[in-house]
Amino acid sequence: MPKFEHHIFVCGNQRPAGHPRGCCDPRGEAKLQKLFKQKLAERGLKATVRANQSGCLDQCEHGPNIVVYPEAVWYGRVTEADVDEIIDSHIVGGKPVERLVLAPACLNTATCEHRKPKD
Amino acid sequence: MPKFEHHIFVCGNQRPAGHPRGCCDPRGEAKLQKLFKQKLAERGLKATVRANQSGCLDQCEHGPNIVVYPEAVWYGRVTEADVDEIIDSHIVGGKPVERLVLAPACLNTATCEHRKPKD
Repeated sequence: MPKFEHHIFVCGNQRPAGHPRGCCDPRGEAKLQKLFKQKLAERGLKATVRANQSGCLDQCEHGPNIVVYPEAVWYGRVTEADVDEIIDSHIVGGKPVERLVLAPACLNTATCEHRKPKD
Repeated sequence: MPKFEHHIFVCGNQRPAGHPRGCCDPRGEAKLQKLFKQKLAERGLKATVRANQSGCLDQCEHGPNIVVYPEAVWYGRVTEADVDEIIDSHIVGGKPVERLVLAPACLNTATCEHRKPKD
């Protein structure tokens, strides 16, 4: 199969403790990405769906963030408890998990209400 | 603008020297990703196009690899000398740089002729 049917990028960025924007993986353990990888393998999806660690996806206020391509679905506040649902509903079933989808007013928006103004 | 018009993921994986699959960024310096980021900023594209470091994209024999979403165009053997052309032709002009596009017979294919058989 030439291209991944879905390619999941899990933000693994760290910032110093207390940074106003926060970060997605403060301990740098990549637990979320590793869990996606494990669960995809368990479902026999390893060849067609890949879960990669990524650098800062720049939606820090909403993290932990992931983005799923090619459909460009962005999720925020993703926890390990959400991984099964994202795989089963979105990746397998084609139905994104709406409660975790980043709102258009928040995505790539410097004026997002969740972003603290710079001092 | 809610979603990136293009999202470039640059493989930053390292493997030990001499590994049969090779790797995309043996020195772990992220030079290619940093150059994409710099050149995009210089062209005023920072808000609409993002270049991220990523974990292993698993096309190691063809590295350094990058993938551009949402169009899912995969490139191999990308060097710093190719960055301007990829941005100008593909990202700005909408025309992928065909000479660097990974062949379908190589992408995600364990039988790719460039992959050395396991011992």
